[in-house]
Amino acid sequence: MSVKYTYMFSEGNEDMRELLGGKGANLAEMTRIGLPVPKGFTITTEACTRYYEDDRTIAPEIEEQILASLVELEEQTGKKLGGSDSPLLLSVRSGARVSMPGMMDTILNLGLNDQVAEAMIRLTGNERFVYDAYRRLIQMFSDVVMELPKSNYEELIDKKKEQRGVKLDSELDANDMKELVEEFKEYYRNAKGEDFPQDPSEQLMEAVKAVFRSWDNPRANVYRRMNDIPYSWGTAVNVMEMVFGNMGSDSGTGVAFTRNPATGEKKLYGEFLMDAQGEDVVAGIRTPQPIDQLKEINPAVYDQFVQITETLEKHYKDMQDMEFTIEHGKLYMLQTRNGKRTAQAAFKIAVDMVNEGMCTKEEALLKIEPNQLDTLLHPRFDPEALEKTEPVASGLAASPGAACGGVVFTADEVKEKCKDGPVILVRLETSPEDIEGMASAEGILTARGGMTSHAAVVARGMGACCVAGCGDLVVHENDGYITLGGKRVNRGEFISLDGSTGNIYLGQIPTVDASTSGDFGTIMGWADEVRSLQVRANADTPKDAKTALNFGAQGIGLTRTEHMFFAEDRIMAMREMIVSKNPEQRRKALDKLLPMQRADFEGIYQVMGERPVTIRLLDPPLHEFLPKEDEEIAALAEDMGLPFSELKGTVISLQEVNPMMGLRGCRLPILFPEIGEMQTRAIIEAAVNVSKEQGISICPEIMVPLVGTQAEIKYMRDLISSVADDIIAESGLDLKYHVGTMIELPRAAVTADEIAEYADFFSFGTNDLTQMTFGFSRDDAAKFLPVYLDKKILDSDPFAHFDADGTGRLVQTAVKLGRETNGDLHLGICGEHGGDPVSIEFFHKAGLDYVSCSPYRVPIARLAAAQAQIKFPR
Amino acid sequence: MSVKYTYMFSEGNEDMRELLGGKGANLAEMTRIGLPVPKGFTITTEACTRYYEDDRTIAPEIEEQILASLVELEEQTGKKLGGSDSPLLLSVRSGARVSMPGMMDTILNLGLNDQVAEAMIRLTGNERFVYDAYRRLIQMFSDVVMELPKSNYEELIDKKKEQRGVKLDSELDANDMKELVEEFKEYYRNAKGEDFPQDPSEQLMEAVKAVFRSWDNPRANVYRRMNDIPYSWGTAVNVMEMVFGNMGSDSGTGVAFTRNPATGEKKLYGEFLMDAQGEDVVAGIRTPQPIDQLKEINPAVYDQFVQITETLEKHYKDMQDMEFTIEHGKLYMLQTRNGKRTAQAAFKIAVDMVNEGMCTKEEALLKIEPNQLDTLLHPRFDPEALEKTEPVASGLAASPGAACGGVVFTADEVKEKCKDGPVILVRLETSPEDIEGMASAEGILTARGGMTSHAAVVARGMGACCVAGCGDLVVHENDGYITLGGKRVNRGEFISLDGSTGNIYLGQIPTVDASTSGDFGTIMGWADEVRSLQVRANADTPKDAKTALNFGAQGIGLTRTEHMFFAEDRIMAMREMIVSKNPEQRRKALDKLLPMQRADFEGIYQVMGERPVTIRLLDPPLHEFLPKEDEEIAALAEDMGLPFSELKGTVISLQEVNPMMGLRGCRLPILFPEIGEMQTRAIIEAAVNVSKEQGISICPEIMVPLVGTQAEIKYMRDLISSVADDIIAESGLDLKYHVGTMIELPRAAVTADEIAEYADFFSFGTNDLTQMTFGFSRDDAAKFLPVYLDKKILDSDPFAHFDADGTGRLVQTAVKLGRETNGDLHLGICGEHGGDPVSIEFFHKAGLDYVSCSPYRVPIARLAAAQAQIKFPR
Repeated sequence: MSVKYTYMFSEGNEDMRELLGGKGANLAEMTRIGLPVPKGFTITTEACTRYYEDDRTIAPEIEEQILASLVELEEQTGKKLGGSDSPLLLSVRSGARVSMPGMMDTILNLGLNDQVAEAMIRLTGNERFVYDAYRRLIQMFSDVVMELPKSNYEELIDKKKEQRGVKLDSELDANDMKELVEEFKEYYRNAKGEDFPQDPSEQLMEAVKAVFRSWDNPRANVYRRMNDIPYSWGTAVNVMEMVFGNMGSDSGTGVAFTRNPATGEKKLYGEFLMDAQGEDVVAGIRTPQPIDQLKEINPAVYDQFVQITETLEKHYKDMQDMEFTIEHGKLYMLQTRNGKRTAQAAFKIAVDMVNEGMCTKEEALLKIEPNQLDTLLHPRFDPEALEKTEPVASGLAASPGAACGGVVFTADEVKEKCKDGPVILVRLETSPEDIEGMASAEGILTARGGMTSHAAVVARGMGACCVAGCGDLVVHENDGYITLGGKRVNRGEFISLDGSTGNIYLGQIPTVDASTSGDFGTIMGWADEVRSLQVRANADTPKDAKTALNFGAQGIGLTRTEHMFFAEDRIMAMREMIVSKNPEQRRKALDKLLPMQRADFEGIYQVMGERPVTIRLLDPPLHEFLPKEDEEIAALAEDMGLPFSELKGTVISLQEVNPMMGLRGCRLPILFPEIGEMQTRAIIEAAVNVSKEQGISICPEIMVPLVGTQAEIKYMRDLISSVADDIIAESGLDLKYHVGTMIELPRAAVTADEIAEYADFFSFGTNDLTQMTFGFSRDDAAKFLPVYLDKKILDSDPFAHFDADGTGRLVQTAVKLGRETNGDLHLGICGEHGGDPVSIEFFHKAGLDYVSCSPYRVPIARLAAAQAQIKFPR
Repeated sequence: MSVKYTYMFSEGNEDMRELLGGKGANLAEMTRIGLPVPKGFTITTEACTRYYEDDRTIAPEIEEQILASLVELEEQTGKKLGGSDSPLLLSVRSGARVSMPGMMDTILNLGLNDQVAEAMIRLTGNERFVYDAYRRLIQMFSDVVMELPKSNYEELIDKKKEQRGVKLDSELDANDMKELVEEFKEYYRNAKGEDFPQDPSEQLMEAVKAVFRSWDNPRANVYRRMNDIPYSWGTAVNVMEMVFGNMGSDSGTGVAFTRNPATGEKKLYGEFLMDAQGEDVVAGIRTPQPIDQLKEINPAVYDQFVQITETLEKHYKDMQDMEFTIEHGKLYMLQTRNGKRTAQAAFKIAVDMVNEGMCTKEEALLKIEPNQLDTLLHPRFDPEALEKTEPVASGLAASPGAACGGVVFTADEVKEKCKDGPVILVRLETSPEDIEGMASAEGILTARGGMTSHAAVVARGMGACCVAGCGDLVVHENDGYITLGGKRVNRGEFISLDGSTGNIYLGQIPTVDASTSGDFGTIMGWADEVRSLQVRANADTPKDAKTALNFGAQGIGLTRTEHMFFAEDRIMAMREMIVSKNPEQRRKALDKLLPMQRADFEGIYQVMGERPVTIRLLDPPLHEFLPKEDEEIAALAEDMGLPFSELKGTVISLQEVNPMMGLRGCRLPILFPEIGEMQTRAIIEAAVNVSKEQGISICPEIMVPLVGTQAEIKYMRDLISSVADDIIAESGLDLKYHVGTMIELPRAAVTADEIAEYADFFSFGTNDLTQMTFGFSRDDAAKFLPVYLDKKILDSDPFAHFDADGTGRLVQTAVKLGRETNGDLHLGICGEHGGDPVSIEFFHKAGLDYVSCSPYRVPIARLAAAQAQIKFPR
């Protein structure tokens, strides 16, 4: 049997998301439960995949199925594509498995040609409407299918307005529109060397191809990469009967959310425009009316709509984001989907829905995108400072957060300037081309567009601060300044945006830390009840440790000791140690470092109490502590009282061809045991001191980096015990300590059974493990990783999202082998992947005991761990 | 039950080698089959291991067992250690599982003290003999047990000779010896603050400890590392009743081989000295008599000895190396072992023994140490040149080969000078301290010592050329010259040694290639019949390919294409390619390289015919082709007509922090497909041309380096096919080609199932795989590998011997996963381990189809593959 590539809306349902895309599946589901949806059909994602496999052509069997579905649609509607009695017009819209707002292409009014236009005029009696629709089709078709920029057509419109002496499109009359259609067609003919296609079937097939093609356009590729959407998924295409919101004052169109997507408030929230097409609302060209004003214009439709929104929210058990159109007083639902929301809103909605009995705690936890928490966990404006400051202007609080930065005007400018300091992107309105720039800006400010404008939707998705539709903003891009409430701000001058209030301030407002109470606390409490994976933090200082505790860390999974040596008062002793010619000299230098290092650890233990603290011994190559340039070497040589040539000789002798794979990690204390002895002494003496001081029993975890063989961990364990046991015996305390290792070399992973004989714990160092497993130097991979992503050799940067398929196999092997040898082996991960939700799901499934991440990502990890447990109970 | 740590010779047998060491097991076996062996017992290797585990102490239970065995020995001999009626004297000698000649310590005459000396005088009536023995004991005990250098005692002897006005030790009389004993004891007392121990049991326990300790001495560690003997094995200790070859003219001592160890000739071969102790023969201080002269001195003992040697050779089915002593006309066997032999002798003995019906072909193959072949496969002196040249002197042909080099005098000098050119180590005699220097010298020449002297034995083991006992050599080390047959040769001047004839020449004699016929051909033929592993060679040029074929390679496993670009006429085009700013420029530069590269491959195909040839695409980072220093960059910029700043910019942009893990391997053609296209074109066009020319069908194997993901090999396979298929279609030939990949990244190994979907073959690149798996940069590991070997973190350098325990697990995983996906997957290895016998055994067991190694190591690999098949049939 041949594959089915098209489904009528009446054939599908919400579970067919993979095949029909999110939009298609929801249109089918709304149809199924009896809501008013225009008739239509969906071309599957498999057809898209096939399109790419067939070298970007639509196979004859797929074309046949599309045409067959078209015939069925004509039967269902009683209209005919290209027909002169009752012509069928279509919208053709993309729809991937997950929503990618504005990333792909849409064509409306498809099916219009010269004859159909005349028929439509006969039917509607509205010549201006018909020619307006026709010129829009030519314009969209040119842009999307033929890659003729829209702007060329806009010029023709501007010329026409000039001829007629008018300013607004709406002032052009039916005749003007008719003339424009002719001018557009002529322009098309000149540009493409052929006529605008009059055959509606041809229009349809070309439009379908264009939507498939748009899956691979640059901005879609960027969006996918940012949101970890696999390229292999493809997009579906939804072909739907047109309904018109621009057929006069009894028609309209709008978008709405069942709850407020910025705050989470349980109140229908949305905007509409009468006598308009949907794109007019989303594009933010006209500022729309709030949804409740619809009640006054058409109470029946309003009530029907409210009822539908309630039905949908209950049905999907989640806040819905919907598009609708009213055609001559009749309501049509064009789309529904789970709405994007701010982190704050996500928490409130999740808690409210549990309280309303609408879903369970587990279901509520799954509704929150862990990465979104990031916005909550970062500073807000200091309320005291805000009290003393008057906003210079205000707009819509489109996406919360606090942002200060210098004013820039374009996405390219953001990319260029953001390296030198924070920037705020200020634009009349944003468009999909701006997406990369938006991601790098501290905040986004627009003059036009509502809460559902492109800027607002995208900023919320990114967790970026955004104030939209600020009427008091005038952008003088070419002259390099803006005015805000009449005050001039030049390019590069600082402004501050409060995305939670919509207020805009001149200059820089100080910020304060995030609070972790309220709905946030409730959700985190649920997450902690549910999850089986523990969450620790990577913290090198008492301050980091305090932040980590505040965010709910259960211990410290990684204290790097090397950072401590870079402080000005220490690096000198460190350098003395490095240039030492024998163990005695080295010991003398290390003796200077010992009390400082001991004090570091005391500070951390004082914060953490009896919670586990894992301290990693010195890891980086020694040359990192020495200067590189002759001038600096000369200066240091003088400071150290050494001949230049001798110090230069040391610097040269420590140079490495591949420092990542050189003399570092446990290789250092194996060559220079004095280093390991000093560090062990500092760790254990600090534990003794703080245990005595606080009357507690601290159990330090000493972590040996870069172990690849059993002999290394055995050597280090012996070295550590030989120092630690004496100190403990002298202290009179019954202090315990653990010795473990990083698993960051492939050899360590595959011989984990042997290594586990001498290790109390493993901590996967997934940064280095990824480097060694791929043979990717993190410092050099930028040369080829972008091409690898472009050419789809990789789905994502393996340093951002853990490579479960490859490197993950080594982790699984190490877990299995390690536990076979030592059933009590404690297993964690302390690479940067420890704060990445996708990676956390893998670590949960791999059976680790804990993840350790940066303090600010601890709540994200707690939530991600809970979600992993709900999805994959263990 | 407690562990048994000592075995009487009468309790053991030859199968207990692991426990009793080689020497102990053979002494037990000789006792068992009724040969005349002094009574004794062996302390096991487990006692040695235990000694190290117990922090270098002998556990009380072991001491008890030693003393109990001593009592039994006293009963068996009717003598008593320290007794005054019939005192027992002992030799205490080390004996590891495999023979380590001269590496560890021995103590003779143990049991002597003042009282025993008097008793011995009463018994033997030979006062001089007894005091000589006593002073030797003090001297050896001081050296071995107390670390008091022997030389201090030698000074006392020299002083005594001066006082007496004599020149030779033998001219000192009984009274002189007695006085020396007193002087030695006094010296001992002054040096150690205590008396020389008079308690024979104390002497024994200290001697045993000293032997255990000697397992860990520096020269033993070096020897073990060179010969891949695990540190964990430990040594046994053999405690044996002393028999004396120095009791007068009816006593003597000697060593003998059942066949000639240099040529393999089937004729008893050996040397002896009458009235001497064994050490006098081995140390080469007096030049001994050939063994057949013993027939005249004592025909009965000679006949008995000949019969014993025949018995032993038949018993062990191998050429034996034996030590014997005659005490007052009675023969004692002190040791037998399989004799070390030259490669030539090994071949002859193996072939002869099969012809004599003494062993099977398989047993014969196992008798040859594959690494020894190296000596046979390298050049010999050109016979024509030899005819025209008169030797200046000659000595014993102690170890064959042809060596030319500058004269040096010490092992340290060898190590220093050998970097600058070949050197010949010239010494009066060598000692175990010289072993490292001997390994780095081209050849060794000594003035003293016979075929079984230290220099001869060690040189044969190493396959180093050696001429020993050259009477015409006078060494003036302090004045920096030697005389050879009266001609003066200064330090650094060249001489040539012929280790096969013993001749020595002034200056440099030209050499010719090795022959591969005769016994060598016979053995290789047997190896080829037996082995299941194929052997290919790594060859980049037609010349290499010819050498490989000559040595029996079955194909080429690796042709590196990068070497071809370094030639002067090509590197310019390569550099143009690198500095190209776009694909068009790059293609233009590549077009210049195409005909050269095609010609390279044509040359190789012309040699190899239809045999498989695997060609690897460009692998190294591009910066390797550009200059590094500003001066060179400026010169090149001028040549290329580029501004300096631009070329410098390119050089900087290509710099990498970790080039090993940077932009190289398949990452290059993925970024710059033109490179891969050009190389594919050259490979396929060359195959087409040579196939047509020779009327054959060449099937090139195209190997993609540094693949880590399925997407990479798929991309490259598509790229290769897109070029190759067109060329083949145009050619009208039915040419096939294979596309495969190196497995050299851990990720490739663990995802081999996915990669095998697009690969016809895998070739394990064990050099890089070892680097990535260990995280060892080969260029930097010299900083820590020596310490790792010293501290026993590693048993051997993993770049020399494949790390079967760790990296090997990745190979096993890749073999299993790869074959699961593709049952026809062809598997090989092309790292340097492909020529290493220990590694080859692993690759055989891992189920690979072939190994590929340097042409000169092909015969070694063929033999090693056969041995692997015999030991582990598959």
